[in-house]
Amino acid sequence: MSRPYISLATDFGAAYTGICAGVVHRIAPDARVHVLSDEITPYAVAEGAMLLAQALPYLPVGVHVGIVDPGVGTARHPVGVRTGRGDVLVGPDNGLLAPAAAALGGALAAHRLEDPAYRLPEVSTSFHGRDVFAPAAAHLANGADLADLGPATGLLPLDVPPPRAHEGTLITSVLYADRYGSLILSAGPAELGEIPHGTVLRVSWDGGGVRAPFVATFGSVAEGEPLLWIDSSGLLGLAVNRGSAAERFGLGAGAPVTVEGLGPHG
Amino acid sequence: MSRPYISLATDFGAAYTGICAGVVHRIAPDARVHVLSDEITPYAVAEGAMLLAQALPYLPVGVHVGIVDPGVGTARHPVGVRTGRGDVLVGPDNGLLAPAAAALGGALAAHRLEDPAYRLPEVSTSFHGRDVFAPAAAHLANGADLADLGPATGLLPLDVPPPRAHEGTLITSVLYADRYGSLILSAGPAELGEIPHGTVLRVSWDGGGVRAPFVATFGSVAEGEPLLWIDSSGLLGLAVNRGSAAERFGLGAGAPVTVEGLGPHG
Amino acid sequence: MSRPYISLATDFGAAYTGICAGVVHRIAPDARVHVLSDEITPYAVAEGAMLLAQALPYLPVGVHVGIVDPGVGTARHPVGVRTGRGDVLVGPDNGLLAPAAAALGGALAAHRLEDPAYRLPEVSTSFHGRDVFAPAAAHLANGADLADLGPATGLLPLDVPPPRAHEGTLITSVLYADRYGSLILSAGPAELGEIPHGTVLRVSWDGGGVRAPFVATFGSVAEGEPLLWIDSSGLLGLAVNRGSAAERFGLGAGAPVTVEGLGPHG
Repeated sequence: MSRPYISLATDFGAAYTGICAGVVHRIAPDARVHVLSDEITPYAVAEGAMLLAQALPYLPVGVHVGIVDPGVGTARHPVGVRTGRGDVLVGPDNGLLAPAAAALGGALAAHRLEDPAYRLPEVSTSFHGRDVFAPAAAHLANGADLADLGPATGLLPLDVPPPRAHEGTLITSVLYADRYGSLILSAGPAELGEIPHGTVLRVSWDGGGVRAPFVATFGSVAEGEPLLWIDSSGLLGLAVNRGSAAERFGLGAGAPVTVEGLGPHG
Repeated sequence: MSRPYISLATDFGAAYTGICAGVVHRIAPDARVHVLSDEITPYAVAEGAMLLAQALPYLPVGVHVGIVDPGVGTARHPVGVRTGRGDVLVGPDNGLLAPAAAALGGALAAHRLEDPAYRLPEVSTSFHGRDVFAPAAAHLANGADLADLGPATGLLPLDVPPPRAHEGTLITSVLYADRYGSLILSAGPAELGEIPHGTVLRVSWDGGGVRAPFVATFGSVAEGEPLLWIDSSGLLGLAVNRGSAAERFGLGAGAPVTVEGLGPHG
Repeated sequence: MSRPYISLATDFGAAYTGICAGVVHRIAPDARVHVLSDEITPYAVAEGAMLLAQALPYLPVGVHVGIVDPGVGTARHPVGVRTGRGDVLVGPDNGLLAPAAAALGGALAAHRLEDPAYRLPEVSTSFHGRDVFAPAAAHLANGADLADLGPATGLLPLDVPPPRAHEGTLITSVLYADRYGSLILSAGPAELGEIPHGTVLRVSWDGGGVRAPFVATFGSVAEGEPLLWIDSSGLLGLAVNRGSAAERFGLGAGAPVTVEGLGPHG
């Protein structure tokens, strides 16, 4: 039988994520410990949620820790979630885990992480990654029963305005900018409708706009030219070939964006 | 018995740290190799020292490599340090390892890493991480005796001005800015004295200052507001809730800072 | 026998590299999975090629994935390369892998990665790291025969202008700036000739120039002073002691640079 598998994705940067991974190594010495990301934009819950939803289906079934936690130390609850695929997700109950749970067969059960036996002996107010989430994940990988960690609870949804498509116009927003400065929007093929590659669409936002073709690959447009495409996460993106759309257009997470020219069924 | 455990923390960035980890993988194929951090600010010995002192007590007992080494290629010595907890610390003898050794039960013995049998065959002048520190760590994880690597030596202390508290005023300095731009100071609860949460203190520096409450969590102040709190490392920090104190106040490592209003026993 | 070893080096950043590593973990659960770097400058094929050529000889014999792939989704071929040392290199056939293959005993055979049995069931147009390269690497680590993945092919060389030395003048270019802002040039000791340490050389570029001594270590010059040295990769570099040459001189990848004063045999 293969060793238990634990992934971690945080907005902590390398060092604090490394401390969390060290806590896991200490409690679960036989586990495979995999830092999925330590580079989520600080406090960017939607970006983290999209990363987890996109990434986890490609990872082994295991325990997956996600931490983007602007409310650490306040009333938000630490939570563990059992998924239909057989994973356990561990993190703050602030919407971060909900899309990933849906992508992994749904949330079968959620429990608050309250039992001190599955936390470090001292719990700080500002570093629950180290003191609460990493120990819980390690104990779960060691075989602890999620129900033993605390009472059953619900799971808060991710708080993002839903995209709307109407009469050829799509009202959406920027979820996040990826490493290349490409802008990932809150809409996907369902909202876009069936438009052929090569269709030129009009993208506009507060204070600006650009015309860009909907294409299959970056290489379909010249260097420096804008494009719309379906990102590997399945979401619509606005990019500049070999450039940064975020810098070029001055846009970032949360910015409302309108896409026009989708045709009557868009 | 569990596999030997090796952590690495450097200011090298991913690629050069990855080469060091690869050297460890090659010499000690059964070890767990954990990159604690590859993101220490270049040349920031105090930041690296504080990270190691804060992090290593949470990691498994093992061999821990720390490299922030502005003097590579000069007369500073590579060193291995046995700690009271049973770890071996490996790195340059420039103060980087001393606080971590103290946090792990003290330095029981230190030896220079001089025997060529525990180095790579060719030792460059600029990349001792690859050529000296990683091979030494891997051989130590494989069971080599620290005393066989070179002669016993002392361990240099970290060269940081000690904080001073007097008549309600604390004279300290910025050790480093963390990933969120929060400024970690060289003083902790001992220097601060017993002040209740909610006390408003005056923080000043060359060319500026701010009034900030001493609180338990970031969420205790509004978004964009300054605060003082005890960081997860046990040090006093100056932060801005969901913002960057380093940017807001233009402060970085080494900047002298005064905190006033501590009360007579502060 | 030790577990199979897989390294990954990409320009993806942490998250997308983490997804690739997760695919490897899923298909090859017994492999050691080592992220050599997730920080190659986006689209910088020469930088990635130099990293692989410099790093891989220090890593265990194994399967090494390299991905800097501005042509993803176009006609460039995914390729696997068997080296003289016994490794298999996996990545796009755009020059990225050629210097590493040469450094590992030469390319004994190269095959296109075409058989769908060694890819994920669905292959996107924009994320071949996840869908093509990671699965191929994992299957190769599991023992698959490279020749089964696709037809034999040649390997494209890295497209970099070769350095030229003539009558004491060296015509070269910046390959990349490293993490410290040091500028790594396309020439090494062979082009430089036998000049003694301490020789002051004249470095010039379009719009500027500087005089800098050729030294063995950064510590040979004062803080803030420029220097030329042989980098740990064996290439000539232009640096500023404890500073950034890239920022100081406004130079980056691809910039032509001339070095004068080498003497008659330079």
